[in-house]
Amino acid sequence: MLSIETLSVGQFSFVGNAFSFGLAVMAATTIFLWLMRSSVAPGYRMAITITGLVTAIAAYHYLQIMMSWDNSVDVTSGELVATGEPYNQAYRYVDWLLTVPLLLIELILVMKLSQQETWNKSIKLGGAAALMIILGYPGEVADSTGVRTLFWILSMIPFLYILQQLVVGLKDSIASQPENVKRLINTAAYLVIVSWAFYPIVYLFPLMGITGGSALVAVEVGYTIADIVAKAVFGLVIFTIALRKSEAETDTKSAAAKK
Amino acid sequence: MLSIETLSVGQFSFVGNAFSFGLAVMAATTIFLWLMRSSVAPGYRMAITITGLVTAIAAYHYLQIMMSWDNSVDVTSGELVATGEPYNQAYRYVDWLLTVPLLLIELILVMKLSQQETWNKSIKLGGAAALMIILGYPGEVADSTGVRTLFWILSMIPFLYILQQLVVGLKDSIASQPENVKRLINTAAYLVIVSWAFYPIVYLFPLMGITGGSALVAVEVGYTIADIVAKAVFGLVIFTIALRKSEAETDTKSAAAKK
Repeated sequence: MLSIETLSVGQFSFVGNAFSFGLAVMAATTIFLWLMRSSVAPGYRMAITITGLVTAIAAYHYLQIMMSWDNSVDVTSGELVATGEPYNQAYRYVDWLLTVPLLLIELILVMKLSQQETWNKSIKLGGAAALMIILGYPGEVADSTGVRTLFWILSMIPFLYILQQLVVGLKDSIASQPENVKRLINTAAYLVIVSWAFYPIVYLFPLMGITGGSALVAVEVGYTIADIVAKAVFGLVIFTIALRKSEAETDTKSAAAKK
Repeated sequence: MLSIETLSVGQFSFVGNAFSFGLAVMAATTIFLWLMRSSVAPGYRMAITITGLVTAIAAYHYLQIMMSWDNSVDVTSGELVATGEPYNQAYRYVDWLLTVPLLLIELILVMKLSQQETWNKSIKLGGAAALMIILGYPGEVADSTGVRTLFWILSMIPFLYILQQLVVGLKDSIASQPENVKRLINTAAYLVIVSWAFYPIVYLFPLMGITGGSALVAVEVGYTIADIVAKAVFGLVIFTIALRKSEAETDTKSAAAKK
């Protein structure tokens, strides 16, 4: 597939810098979320804990990805020489297997539905997300374009189910949210849809004949940007929702106490 | 025994990825449990602290196992070459010696029995668990199949005692639990039984003539999955039990206060 030695030294370090940027953003978001956790009402703390877990898990995997990238080639006299240790693409899948279901659970938790509904939606959406990642992996590591296409199609089934659930299935739940966060929750749902759309497109690059150095740079930097939007930016939106809902609930309570 | 150089590079990195996945799951579960500790009633905080300790100890050992795995071979020009540093199986035993007794203590603590009963059951079950691990180790490192079989049998005695205690001995204690968690506590007990059954079976693989690359992959990935179920999934069930019991107790208290 896409081979790292075809890169120029400049391209190689550009991707390495993107990974380092990803690591820094994920780690910083994690620390922010966990330190600010006590500022939201107790009912939202599990949502914020998990939001920080997602970026923490991503930070760990960006560290692994960055190290694997650096170890796959030696830079000697201005050229890249393969060390024989392959660049480990699988870290991305291991990361997604954990973080993608958790991302959907964040969104469900911050809506504070009934216990039953929270549980049902978490199982359905989280399960579909895990299935989507598991079905994507055999195609990612396959050499044949037929196998890659097959698993792309299989993986798109749970993907489309999740999109349908986010657009249609959560409509009632979103309608029941307080006015001051309705738009933000919609933003969060659309952030998922837009950032996630990037992944299946990139997956198809090798099938579209997009290969070579610039394609590899586009894929790795593109995944990194998509991850930052889907996890860190999304996480900060979730935090803002939790904060606004906490404030609104405190106002209601103190108004009730005054009566 | 099973030798790492017989693996393909793909198999070698698959196992390495499974270890990395195990590390991420254990560390994430630990952080979740410790951050959410304040959400359970004070009477359950020791149970949750220990539940997080178990996954923390496991995370540390998965890091050690992953590094030992990586250091045992060099990947050069698409082949594995032994470095001479042996892959250290003992980390698993050191881990189990600490975590397996603690796992049973978690389950006892979350039931909140009388002080006397908690103490008795912790000593009995925790002691049996430690004995089981200690008796397993000499067989694991033995070259002779006779020694391996002997210590398998010796180690099965405390194992069967623990199973008997979980199925029969805890029956009265489980019967005294509140309705809303009875099923969850049963689930936790059966989760122990099912996930633990995996270990003595894998231990017998070399005796059954199951060797070579795929067997090594099956053993290492299988142990990792069993560890995740027995420690992380089990830990989240324990947390859910503690949370539900805390909520039920608060409800009872506030109902009593209203009278």
